[in-house]
Amino acid sequence: MKDKAPPAAPGKVILGIDPGLARMGYGVILQREGRCRALDYGTMTSAARAPVEKRLVDLFEQMRAVLKKNKPDAVALEELFFSKNVKTGMAVSQARGVAVLAAGLAGLPVYEYRPVEVKQAITGYGQAEKQQVQKMVKLLLGLSEVPKPDDTEDALAVALTHAQVGGGTLARMIQANQGRGF
Amino acid sequence: MKDKAPPAAPGKVILGIDPGLARMGYGVILQREGRCRALDYGTMTSAARAPVEKRLVDLFEQMRAVLKKNKPDAVALEELFFSKNVKTGMAVSQARGVAVLAAGLAGLPVYEYRPVEVKQAITGYGQAEKQQVQKMVKLLLGLSEVPKPDDTEDALAVALTHAQVGGGTLARMIQANQGRGF
Repeated sequence: MKDKAPPAAPGKVILGIDPGLARMGYGVILQREGRCRALDYGTMTSAARAPVEKRLVDLFEQMRAVLKKNKPDAVALEELFFSKNVKTGMAVSQARGVAVLAAGLAGLPVYEYRPVEVKQAITGYGQAEKQQVQKMVKLLLGLSEVPKPDDTEDALAVALTHAQVGGGTLARMIQANQGRGF
Repeated sequence: MKDKAPPAAPGKVILGIDPGLARMGYGVILQREGRCRALDYGTMTSAARAPVEKRLVDLFEQMRAVLKKNKPDAVALEELFFSKNVKTGMAVSQARGVAVLAAGLAGLPVYEYRPVEVKQAITGYGQAEKQQVQKMVKLLLGLSEVPKPDDTEDALAVALTHAQVGGGTLARMIQANQGRGF
């Protein structure tokens, strides 16, 4: 049974990130005694009229502030798929790189989940509708309403996914997907 | 004639970057009195077996060292096109974001050129062959041989492009291409 995921450590803080250049959602949860609660969530932003180098600096500094405030044990992100709009995908990927870098500079491991894994972990059904995921995020975290905007809710969903999966079987380090041969 | 590019300032140092996750080429040139010479060039690397967050940290630190050593006035990169391999494009874009961030943290403007603009600026012909570009980079910088690997030569080529274009008509800030609406 060596492939079995170990039980998550008590009191684990997980930061979920939904990457973007204009808006980057973040959600911080505390996983303790089999339950999760939201510690912090919101959206980091950058001004569309600013040069990209300035926008990335702004996001980096906000990310550093979130890390400093919440001191997570791990960072989780959704895998990106941008087959329809490569240009958008690359702009988002640049911002994503900044978030992953900030995690790395803080010495944190970064985990990546496919959208189907997030849906499966949150609702038990990999093809779940968006609304089902939102409803479950609200229920799982005991929130009075679905966090807005979507970036924030998506960030909490991927943090919850990491909590559910425990960094084990479904979790994969980013390098397993992306890190070879480039 | 307000669209005309102003003459480049004397003694301008330009850092060209050819982004990548495993290898990121850099080339530093000094543009003075209408001529360019190479100050420094080489390749930043990250270990394929390391987690991506560690690889991005490694590239970030090497980029910071290059900036600290050479104190450029501007940074130039080629636009990325990855219609064939989106996954590779995203991994490279993440690394690219780290390079752009490092430039932004150093307070430097970042300029982006399309491959056709690089070929046009270096050889006078936008559809030039790779070998023609290499030969011209060698000639323009008075080098005894074509810098290797290709990442390094490509980095010098985009730095030379910025020197030729002077940050004016052909140069476009990254945000003009990528920064809207994401």
